[in-house]
Amino acid sequence: MANFDGPGFSMVDDSWIQTKAIDVEPSTDFSPYLSRILEDCVWNGDRAIVFDVYWDVESVNTKSERRLSSVKLSTKNLCLFLRLPNQFSDNLKDLYRFFASKFVTFVGVQIEGDLVLLKENHGIVIRSYLEIGKLAAVARGTPIVEFLGARELAHKILSCDMSRLDSIQSKWDEAGGDDRLEAAAIEGWLIYNVYDQLQQ
Amino acid sequence: MANFDGPGFSMVDDSWIQTKAIDVEPSTDFSPYLSRILEDCVWNGDRAIVFDVYWDVESVNTKSERRLSSVKLSTKNLCLFLRLPNQFSDNLKDLYRFFASKFVTFVGVQIEGDLVLLKENHGIVIRSYLEIGKLAAVARGTPIVEFLGARELAHKILSCDMSRLDSIQSKWDEAGGDDRLEAAAIEGWLIYNVYDQLQQ
Amino acid sequence: MANFDGPGFSMVDDSWIQTKAIDVEPSTDFSPYLSRILEDCVWNGDRAIVFDVYWDVESVNTKSERRLSSVKLSTKNLCLFLRLPNQFSDNLKDLYRFFASKFVTFVGVQIEGDLVLLKENHGIVIRSYLEIGKLAAVARGTPIVEFLGARELAHKILSCDMSRLDSIQSKWDEAGGDDRLEAAAIEGWLIYNVYDQLQQ
Amino acid sequence: MANFDGPGFSMVDDSWIQTKAIDVEPSTDFSPYLSRILEDCVWNGDRAIVFDVYWDVESVNTKSERRLSSVKLSTKNLCLFLRLPNQFSDNLKDLYRFFASKFVTFVGVQIEGDLVLLKENHGIVIRSYLEIGKLAAVARGTPIVEFLGARELAHKILSCDMSRLDSIQSKWDEAGGDDRLEAAAIEGWLIYNVYDQLQQ
Amino acid sequence: MANFDGPGFSMVDDSWIQTKAIDVEPSTDFSPYLSRILEDCVWNGDRAIVFDVYWDVESVNTKSERRLSSVKLSTKNLCLFLRLPNQFSDNLKDLYRFFASKFVTFVGVQIEGDLVLLKENHGIVIRSYLEIGKLAAVARGTPIVEFLGARELAHKILSCDMSRLDSIQSKWDEAGGDDRLEAAAIEGWLIYNVYDQLQQ
Amino acid sequence: MANFDGPGFSMVDDSWIQTKAIDVEPSTDFSPYLSRILEDCVWNGDRAIVFDVYWDVESVNTKSERRLSSVKLSTKNLCLFLRLPNQFSDNLKDLYRFFASKFVTFVGVQIEGDLVLLKENHGIVIRSYLEIGKLAAVARGTPIVEFLGARELAHKILSCDMSRLDSIQSKWDEAGGDDRLEAAAIEGWLIYNVYDQLQQ
Repeated sequence: MANFDGPGFSMVDDSWIQTKAIDVEPSTDFSPYLSRILEDCVWNGDRAIVFDVYWDVESVNTKSERRLSSVKLSTKNLCLFLRLPNQFSDNLKDLYRFFASKFVTFVGVQIEGDLVLLKENHGIVIRSYLEIGKLAAVARGTPIVEFLGARELAHKILSCDMSRLDSIQSKWDEAGGDDRLEAAAIEGWLIYNVYDQLQQ
Repeated sequence: MANFDGPGFSMVDDSWIQTKAIDVEPSTDFSPYLSRILEDCVWNGDRAIVFDVYWDVESVNTKSERRLSSVKLSTKNLCLFLRLPNQFSDNLKDLYRFFASKFVTFVGVQIEGDLVLLKENHGIVIRSYLEIGKLAAVARGTPIVEFLGARELAHKILSCDMSRLDSIQSKWDEAGGDDRLEAAAIEGWLIYNVYDQLQQ
Repeated sequence: MANFDGPGFSMVDDSWIQTKAIDVEPSTDFSPYLSRILEDCVWNGDRAIVFDVYWDVESVNTKSERRLSSVKLSTKNLCLFLRLPNQFSDNLKDLYRFFASKFVTFVGVQIEGDLVLLKENHGIVIRSYLEIGKLAAVARGTPIVEFLGARELAHKILSCDMSRLDSIQSKWDEAGGDDRLEAAAIEGWLIYNVYDQLQQ
Repeated sequence: MANFDGPGFSMVDDSWIQTKAIDVEPSTDFSPYLSRILEDCVWNGDRAIVFDVYWDVESVNTKSERRLSSVKLSTKNLCLFLRLPNQFSDNLKDLYRFFASKFVTFVGVQIEGDLVLLKENHGIVIRSYLEIGKLAAVARGTPIVEFLGARELAHKILSCDMSRLDSIQSKWDEAGGDDRLEAAAIEGWLIYNVYDQLQQ
Repeated sequence: MANFDGPGFSMVDDSWIQTKAIDVEPSTDFSPYLSRILEDCVWNGDRAIVFDVYWDVESVNTKSERRLSSVKLSTKNLCLFLRLPNQFSDNLKDLYRFFASKFVTFVGVQIEGDLVLLKENHGIVIRSYLEIGKLAAVARGTPIVEFLGARELAHKILSCDMSRLDSIQSKWDEAGGDDRLEAAAIEGWLIYNVYDQLQQ
Repeated sequence: MANFDGPGFSMVDDSWIQTKAIDVEPSTDFSPYLSRILEDCVWNGDRAIVFDVYWDVESVNTKSERRLSSVKLSTKNLCLFLRLPNQFSDNLKDLYRFFASKFVTFVGVQIEGDLVLLKENHGIVIRSYLEIGKLAAVARGTPIVEFLGARELAHKILSCDMSRLDSIQSKWDEAGGDDRLEAAAIEGWLIYNVYDQLQQ
């Protein structure tokens, strides 16, 4: 079975996030990891997968273009980080199908621009998604939270200690791979908990 | 008459769903099954058909594209699952005409992206439809339900036992054909009952 | 004068609908029937014409396309059903001009998709129209009625006996021409009465 | 000075509308009539010109297209009816400039589709306009009036006798030129009075 | 320094508007006048410039097109009227840059159509603007003012004497250059004062 | 480490803004300055970067086009001003990636038109942004602030002394480089403080 054998990180509430980072190549079969993510989110009883996408900038003549460079998927206990290749390869279809699933709701922060780019540049459609800032703004009656990034949104809703995340992100260019993975795991965990709060 | 001679499944309220799965080929005449679905939904007095569509991912140069691969249609007592061929064939017009009917309201979850793809990629227009999450959000005053998938939406509105569905979907890749059909039937039945609740 | 010499049908409140079905050919002059419809709706004092349009599915390469195949126009006492030819012919301009009239309001159910298709595929513009479900939802404070088909909408607003309509529509594929015309007349009459109710 | 020497008509409140109908040809200078309309609307102290546009249907291959065939302009005392030629001629620029004026507000019923067609098909832009049904719906709190034609809208707001208008419009195909002009004048006068009412 | 040496006009509150009309040719350097406008609006403490644009109609085949023919810029004390040449010339960039400034808010009446045309036809983007009718409608709770032209909007908000403006605009075709400039100055002054009122 | 060794300016509350202006050439590595901005905004605990973009006008045939000419980035203590070259060069990707970051929220005034131009003309996407005027309008219940420029918005929210900014901007064409930089720093500081106020 898919083994999240990357580093594990302790969160500020002492919960534990197990991670896995994969450099996807044409021959890489990452679908067992997607299955594990799915399984975890089903058994946690909320059917939510927190996600974020990262873009690389390519120059096409005088304009720049975005290419999907990596994807982060987080559940309550797991964080999967996929670094994608430059070229489309057949195994990416597994990811595209995963995004199209309606078993789960994909939860993200400030994702509207991303959804447009995913469709325009890669033909990827996420069918069941939740822009959590918008929901939080309505549910809490505080319009500003619609416009915040993940860290600030979580800060407003959860009021927990962010010093570890701040410490890594303030020195991002000097941060090592594990530190970056930890920051990704913390952000995923924060949004997961915001979602959990809003359900109540 | 069209015979739903696939497996039948018992729901958590002891109601019974009779299923039929069809691998559609150019020579398959599935219209009697559509007629049966129509008839059932008329006699149940609600004129609602719960539906879901499933997409296959095809790669076109560097982008991916969606092709309609199957369709699920559910009424109170029946669940029809049509696996569609890769190529357009004339009998598919029966399905396209069926979707355009105004006799009934087609009820779905998170269907807006699907409706766009159906029109763009296949020229299919569903004329009378209901995005049930949006309605539930307004009717119940709980904005979050607009953004949930079928299972979570049903969980919020119906509060019934979901363990059988969870059990199948958490191990989807290993699930057999009958299990998958049962999951489809359960999801259809759940949304049907959400719709029924919202009417009251 | 234009004679509605098709079958007449008795409605559940004992009112009488006189019908006329016409297979339009290039030489058919159906404009006197449109004039009669107009006259009837003016003298009934509401200036409303209930309409519905029906589409045929044509396959163009791998996509399907919609072609306007027939049009139903209903007033308080009359129901005109026009079956249109495959090819554009000059007499269709009479219909297109009729739709552009602002003397009357064209009333329909779930017509937004139809209006788009009418303009895109045939250049037809209905200038004065009313999506009655949307109005009913606002006027009655029941959001669900916006999304219902004609029969269910009428059921919610009028609560009258629908058994004759249900009986025909549940066996649509086996229904004869007169039965289908009766169903069309009943649906037109239902929406006419919904409109009448909402005015009060 | 421009002389409105067409027939005059008495309205139900004994006011008097003086009309002028012009068959515009390339050599026709109708600008003095526009100036008179402008002058009248300025001195009446409301800066409102009620307008309606009429379209002819032309067939282009298998689709139909709309061509602006006539324009009606009404103030408190005047009604100008311009029948336009098939071909663009330079004097039409006077009309196009008139429509672009911000001295006045152009008031119409169900004009949104017209505004789109005017821009798409003829490049005409009306810069200052008022969809009066929408305003009436908000101002009176009765959503249905947004969707009504001119006669029904006036009926709801003014409750005046419409029998002369009904009499002409119910027999439109048999109506003579003067009767049609009278109907145009009555409709313009009705909307002018609706606008006047809504101002108070 | 740029000298507003055109005619000055007295407003109904005895304030004084100094004007300048310029026929812009490729060699005209009008930028000192823009600087003066900017300076005046800064020192008046509101950072608002009231503007209006005027279009000429050109026929391109069977359609008409709009070309920006003149621009009016008003502050509390100044009114600049620029008549633009038919051809683009390099000094127009000064105007285009001026419109793109965020130092000030450009205030106009019924400008949405204008903004679209400015971008589509000339590539001009006004980055900081205010559709004052829309704001007035919200701020005063009177929806009708959103749809009024400059004179009527001012009449509703300011209730001041409009006879001079009416007198000129009712005889527009016979009005001389100075009268037209006075009308432009009055309209600018009216909107400036509406803006001032709405601030309080 | 990146040194903000440009002039420093004292604000009206005696806080100090350190600036840096860079003429970006293909060989310039400005990324350390972006890192410093990021670090400062993280440690200030708000994750907000105030930005503004400036456009140059280029004529393409008869139309004008916008080219991004400079970018201003402000945090609580720093103000970075980048003058960009005419041609795309590889180091600009650092800026484009910076704009796409979700670590922070980019805060601007009247930026909607800018965001469209950034995407259309340069392919730049700012993923996490806040149109602060819109938020202020909702948060304070004063619709007018949505439409104001930076100075007026700050004036409404902060009511602080603007004489230095007014003094520079009123004589913009004569202002020297340091004065312009000071004005940029003041505007950035103002919006930063508006954002700070709205958080409370």
